[in-house]
Amino acid sequence: MKKIKLPSSIVLDPLLQSWLIEDIGRGDRTTGGIFTEDIATREAQWVAKEVGIIAGLPVAARVFQLLNKEINFIPLATEGEKVDRTKVIARIEGAMDALLMGERVALNLAMRLSGIATLTQRYVDAIADLPTQLVDTRKTTPGLRILEKYATQVGGAVNHRMGLDDAVMIKDNHIAAAGGIKEAIARIRETMPYPLTIEVETNTLAEVEEALFHGADIVMLDNMTTEQMKRAVQFIREKNEKVKIEASGNVTLDNIRAVAETGIDYISSSAPITRSTWLDLSMRLK
Amino acid sequence: MKKIKLPSSIVLDPLLQSWLIEDIGRGDRTTGGIFTEDIATREAQWVAKEVGIIAGLPVAARVFQLLNKEINFIPLATEGEKVDRTKVIARIEGAMDALLMGERVALNLAMRLSGIATLTQRYVDAIADLPTQLVDTRKTTPGLRILEKYATQVGGAVNHRMGLDDAVMIKDNHIAAAGGIKEAIARIRETMPYPLTIEVETNTLAEVEEALFHGADIVMLDNMTTEQMKRAVQFIREKNEKVKIEASGNVTLDNIRAVAETGIDYISSSAPITRSTWLDLSMRLK
Amino acid sequence: MKKIKLPSSIVLDPLLQSWLIEDIGRGDRTTGGIFTEDIATREAQWVAKEVGIIAGLPVAARVFQLLNKEINFIPLATEGEKVDRTKVIARIEGAMDALLMGERVALNLAMRLSGIATLTQRYVDAIADLPTQLVDTRKTTPGLRILEKYATQVGGAVNHRMGLDDAVMIKDNHIAAAGGIKEAIARIRETMPYPLTIEVETNTLAEVEEALFHGADIVMLDNMTTEQMKRAVQFIREKNEKVKIEASGNVTLDNIRAVAETGIDYISSSAPITRSTWLDLSMRLK
Amino acid sequence: MKKIKLPSSIVLDPLLQSWLIEDIGRGDRTTGGIFTEDIATREAQWVAKEVGIIAGLPVAARVFQLLNKEINFIPLATEGEKVDRTKVIARIEGAMDALLMGERVALNLAMRLSGIATLTQRYVDAIADLPTQLVDTRKTTPGLRILEKYATQVGGAVNHRMGLDDAVMIKDNHIAAAGGIKEAIARIRETMPYPLTIEVETNTLAEVEEALFHGADIVMLDNMTTEQMKRAVQFIREKNEKVKIEASGNVTLDNIRAVAETGIDYISSSAPITRSTWLDLSMRLK
Amino acid sequence: MKKIKLPSSIVLDPLLQSWLIEDIGRGDRTTGGIFTEDIATREAQWVAKEVGIIAGLPVAARVFQLLNKEINFIPLATEGEKVDRTKVIARIEGAMDALLMGERVALNLAMRLSGIATLTQRYVDAIADLPTQLVDTRKTTPGLRILEKYATQVGGAVNHRMGLDDAVMIKDNHIAAAGGIKEAIARIRETMPYPLTIEVETNTLAEVEEALFHGADIVMLDNMTTEQMKRAVQFIREKNEKVKIEASGNVTLDNIRAVAETGIDYISSSAPITRSTWLDLSMRLK
Amino acid sequence: MKKIKLPSSIVLDPLLQSWLIEDIGRGDRTTGGIFTEDIATREAQWVAKEVGIIAGLPVAARVFQLLNKEINFIPLATEGEKVDRTKVIARIEGAMDALLMGERVALNLAMRLSGIATLTQRYVDAIADLPTQLVDTRKTTPGLRILEKYATQVGGAVNHRMGLDDAVMIKDNHIAAAGGIKEAIARIRETMPYPLTIEVETNTLAEVEEALFHGADIVMLDNMTTEQMKRAVQFIREKNEKVKIEASGNVTLDNIRAVAETGIDYISSSAPITRSTWLDLSMRLK
Repeated sequence: MKKIKLPSSIVLDPLLQSWLIEDIGRGDRTTGGIFTEDIATREAQWVAKEVGIIAGLPVAARVFQLLNKEINFIPLATEGEKVDRTKVIARIEGAMDALLMGERVALNLAMRLSGIATLTQRYVDAIADLPTQLVDTRKTTPGLRILEKYATQVGGAVNHRMGLDDAVMIKDNHIAAAGGIKEAIARIRETMPYPLTIEVETNTLAEVEEALFHGADIVMLDNMTTEQMKRAVQFIREKNEKVKIEASGNVTLDNIRAVAETGIDYISSSAPITRSTWLDLSMRLK
Repeated sequence: MKKIKLPSSIVLDPLLQSWLIEDIGRGDRTTGGIFTEDIATREAQWVAKEVGIIAGLPVAARVFQLLNKEINFIPLATEGEKVDRTKVIARIEGAMDALLMGERVALNLAMRLSGIATLTQRYVDAIADLPTQLVDTRKTTPGLRILEKYATQVGGAVNHRMGLDDAVMIKDNHIAAAGGIKEAIARIRETMPYPLTIEVETNTLAEVEEALFHGADIVMLDNMTTEQMKRAVQFIREKNEKVKIEASGNVTLDNIRAVAETGIDYISSSAPITRSTWLDLSMRLK
Repeated sequence: MKKIKLPSSIVLDPLLQSWLIEDIGRGDRTTGGIFTEDIATREAQWVAKEVGIIAGLPVAARVFQLLNKEINFIPLATEGEKVDRTKVIARIEGAMDALLMGERVALNLAMRLSGIATLTQRYVDAIADLPTQLVDTRKTTPGLRILEKYATQVGGAVNHRMGLDDAVMIKDNHIAAAGGIKEAIARIRETMPYPLTIEVETNTLAEVEEALFHGADIVMLDNMTTEQMKRAVQFIREKNEKVKIEASGNVTLDNIRAVAETGIDYISSSAPITRSTWLDLSMRLK
Repeated sequence: MKKIKLPSSIVLDPLLQSWLIEDIGRGDRTTGGIFTEDIATREAQWVAKEVGIIAGLPVAARVFQLLNKEINFIPLATEGEKVDRTKVIARIEGAMDALLMGERVALNLAMRLSGIATLTQRYVDAIADLPTQLVDTRKTTPGLRILEKYATQVGGAVNHRMGLDDAVMIKDNHIAAAGGIKEAIARIRETMPYPLTIEVETNTLAEVEEALFHGADIVMLDNMTTEQMKRAVQFIREKNEKVKIEASGNVTLDNIRAVAETGIDYISSSAPITRSTWLDLSMRLK
Repeated sequence: MKKIKLPSSIVLDPLLQSWLIEDIGRGDRTTGGIFTEDIATREAQWVAKEVGIIAGLPVAARVFQLLNKEINFIPLATEGEKVDRTKVIARIEGAMDALLMGERVALNLAMRLSGIATLTQRYVDAIADLPTQLVDTRKTTPGLRILEKYATQVGGAVNHRMGLDDAVMIKDNHIAAAGGIKEAIARIRETMPYPLTIEVETNTLAEVEEALFHGADIVMLDNMTTEQMKRAVQFIREKNEKVKIEASGNVTLDNIRAVAETGIDYISSSAPITRSTWLDLSMRLK
Repeated sequence: MKKIKLPSSIVLDPLLQSWLIEDIGRGDRTTGGIFTEDIATREAQWVAKEVGIIAGLPVAARVFQLLNKEINFIPLATEGEKVDRTKVIARIEGAMDALLMGERVALNLAMRLSGIATLTQRYVDAIADLPTQLVDTRKTTPGLRILEKYATQVGGAVNHRMGLDDAVMIKDNHIAAAGGIKEAIARIRETMPYPLTIEVETNTLAEVEEALFHGADIVMLDNMTTEQMKRAVQFIREKNEKVKIEASGNVTLDNIRAVAETGIDYISSSAPITRSTWLDLSMRLK
């Protein structure tokens, strides 16, 4: 299983802090009222309440540490591990008020990310023996893109571009505004950072040909039938082996295998993020 | 249909700005490369691609206006309206680069919020003729609590507390730490703002009695059978008519009606948020 | 003496940091010019220069620690303790530059908070043998609400709502806009989080009756004579024992006892915050 | 009356926004519940409820405009004007929800600032016919320094340094650490921006002499008797006419005139800020 | 001349605001003291005081507009235009206090950016008739990367990657840590977003071959002689026409043409940013 | 060599964090892909690649510590030390991923600051035996003023004012708007903090006389010939020994000595900042 690394805490911490403040507001009335004296150290456990793929434990650990540096969060499942119902996935030791104050934010993150990883893996498993890879999209919950795209990786997918700035994606409206695929590519190449790649969205074989001819690095086949895809793949492979081919549009668990068998390189789908539910996890104090 | 008001833009705008920056990063390479000269005004339409309840159009409107004040976002569906597939739910006029740059963030929000409103309403519909109301929980996506709880309202639910600071919720760990329900309530009352209410989580009738006796404003029946709930409701109503009763734990579309028929006031469920998928919406330029 | 807990440092630290930056600006010219080499550890003392109630020492400790983690701030008075002139209330050990750089911000906070606690206690003492409690208001210095309301608690008062979002307060303008108390309560109940309470401001016995009848949780008697209050209290107690009664308006040390003797539950007053002066404290290095 | 200008809104707006968010939190439940439809424009008046000096109306105006750009705030008193009880000091027209949502923050600021201006003027009036001027100190409420020092100016005082970075103030601890006044001044001059001035705190005539000899721009006489001050002033004037002399320590309304009559240039006092109460102002809707 | 577009103001404004606050601090004492009454509208001109390429006028315009929306900034030179000494490059009309308060920040930006554009163009001109393009590096002034890379574009260069996240650059240390070029590429491909490209730094022909063989998208020739470069280019072109070749290391105006004549695609150089001085511009009021 | 102290980390850290985030963006793809397992500790060296004055090592140290607290940054050159080509100026030990992730930001800062210190010292050396001192200006890179002015100090210069708020500088436009030097000074004195100094820009001897007569603390001779300067200095010294004299305008290495020999106190020049290039430094791993 590949190891996915979270971005540096210098990038993540400001997000986690804002989320703790969102929940705590002007102070945790319940915990703040109970724990006014010396606060006992306690041990808590996180338990999976349904079968799924675990993602987000390092994020959860950091949430608790931002509240109280002494908290010891010991993951008992690795990122990407499939766990059974009732499996204890983490043990947490530390001051009880911090355990209770951080519980909800930490769990919300881990439940959301594990839910994404779980559904991602179902899609990935359907094409695991084929060379095609699953990629995500920019349909992510605002504010959580880094983490949700971390979760799709944990589930076995590959990230597509992270934002509007790290690759070019030319769609029909750009083409219309520029006056053609050729003009659109030319104009964008003038101002884009040179290591960036250009992906062109195509709907017909004619557009595929045009995109290829004018130097697209990636050709996206949008909402084509598997029959159309097969022809497009054959056409592109003959012309240029380096160009990557991506299929997009209405991919489901039912049709993903058929799409992959067209020989394309990547299938992009927002479903692992937009169609997943949270994996049920809970914390109990011992 | 009740009208739900979003918080003031002074509260929302910082969130929306950070989400636009998350997506745009160091600049939209595609749009920035194409639209370098005078930028034409265009009209776009938002279309529902599946049946559901619309929520989040005023938020989407604000997203576009933060990019370009001249953009005119005209909602064609009211918040909470049930729309059919292919229904045009908004018309947007303005500079084309802003339309394309704001599209993803605005749609991501509206799709997520509409998805929540849609599932919420299914729960609410199941008990619509009964006096019991559905309430949400603190299981919300970090950073989006205000908006996700707005969406559950649009779907017909009532908000539970917004954070750890605007009501007290005494759980078993608090009770254990304080040495009993009585002590926990007493200790918290000393330091909590006086208009706040105290909710006590109970698992047995004995606990219900104790919570009631020591002045809980809300008694939560956690994971009880409908039979236990009926007895608890009867007991509480006899003792104190003002106390509110809430049921919590594993409520589903299958059992929500049975739970409501026990006579309780509120059913809390995270399902509308943790179990909902995004409502499929898309933007097309005319 | 009850123990009041400050909100988590994750909530307070951003405030304290911004206040240190306000004072330090682009660098402490005096300290920065003197202490350029290895900086000696010194001991400082905080001394009360007038009689009063101490509040804010844990906040001051945190101010110093944000400048230099090694600083050891040892409080020698407990929060809420009445101290005499010349009493040493804290001992602080650490690098001299940090002691001098943090001195002003830390003292300003402790002086302001102790001043509030001191005047609060004078009001509280006047009704100490009666069941009525003193509550504060939203008349707090912008940016310091959490801390100033902490200080009123230290002085013996109870907090009223912390902001516009954690309870409902219906005033005459709301009533006028809604078309009556009944309509106002009904409309607000539709959208407010359910654990919130509704307080209605009343000026006459007729309004008291209306508020009570339509379900107010708290009835506020605004600017009534003690005679009117007595009648209102009697009326409300007969109708509904659970409803809380609050008196508001021009409460002074002279009349607070008379108001409390009307039997109301709470007296709200902004005086402990708007009429208090700072308690004189100073730091001296040994 | 001199016109005091507030810093640019680019400096003030972030403060005002944070203070509005402090009060509004997750949304104004009362106003948000009532005003869901088209919101009527209303007129409000601000009324003085006690005699005092008005300060802060331009700040209040900006608070409302941040909530709603259409709000028209018309001041009916000039900054620094002495107003009587019942005087209408401002008229505000605009959408009713914004009027109610901004009321508290705007009033809190104006009440606090007017209270400071009012007490400042009492000190200033006591020495109005003398050349000595009153100056403030760094004892200001954390976060409000710019505004509180604006208010002392409105009341007729002159600002002392705004922070640790815009002048040098050498106190006994600095002198001790450096090994003497001469060494302290020399060391600081090496690293301080050259337009900055150096003030030295002195307790004896010997220290005055030393400070003067080593080039202090300002000599502060700390806690001296008026007799000592007179001698120090005479001594300094003879040696160097350009050096400014400041008296500090326990200045009251009773002794300020005697201090000024010693011939010093400035009397610094924190009293206008630490000993002032809020000026009572209220808003009423017409 | 190609038109370079600045990122959306939603990305730039927070930077510009922080820079205005850096300069204004607690308020512009000079302007604030002079302009207290109605402030006259004035016209200012920006004049070039040396020959160079203009860059940054749209940024300067935005700086003034953040201070005062009514300011009209009319550029009289296009971005990238070569101007003579004494050329009037902009006319600015608006309230005089805003003109004076924004002058320094706006000029500092335009001077710095124009200086970069000017030196960039000297490098670009030296190879203008060859297909090789000049690219910048990550050696940019912290906080100004977006703007400094905008300036190199205005000067005719192409941007290299904007940060550590939008392309992969494998250096010797990465290769050593991974255990070889093959392993490094393989490991990174597992976790990188798929549209990203991989650049490998090479020092010998053997490394070039290895990088090419294992799928590098870009091969960087680091500190090679022009003779080595020629051989590497020939080798790579034969094997794979799609791979881009970049030369790096100690490129100067003297040797850049010789490097370009080796047939490589890109020459990267930090010199336009690290070796440029500011273009002298000044503002005068009419 | 005088020791210059950086402002407290409470002031600097927010800048350093924002600069790390600027470079790292959504995560370092190269380092994040290679270093997924236990990360080895390594030692790196910083080497000077050209002769110059070192400045910024304490800043660089802090950059690494913000990424990873365990990193040990050992400076091997003191701030202000002149180093030769190939001199090892620092040794850094710590986890390899943090070394690589922080490298660019830390080096960019040290290279920029050392470049400034290097050119500053050339100017300072030219007048080292004269009493005249070199001062910097407000022409600094936006966002880096504190650090760039730290570097001019390290190079031997003295800081001029840090922003628009810590001294008054009256220029021709202010004089024109106020109606004369006398009026301008009078008006500003009314509202400026009293320890601030007033500098007046003069172009003729008549203006020098007027500035002196109306109480300027500093007279700036703008763009005068050395002959004019000599006369102005003589005139001012005769009238008032305390007034400081500053020369400004087109100072170069060629003419600085002649300017200093006129007997003025300060020569202000933006050249050390606007005309300096970065000192070439690099990091190599052992």
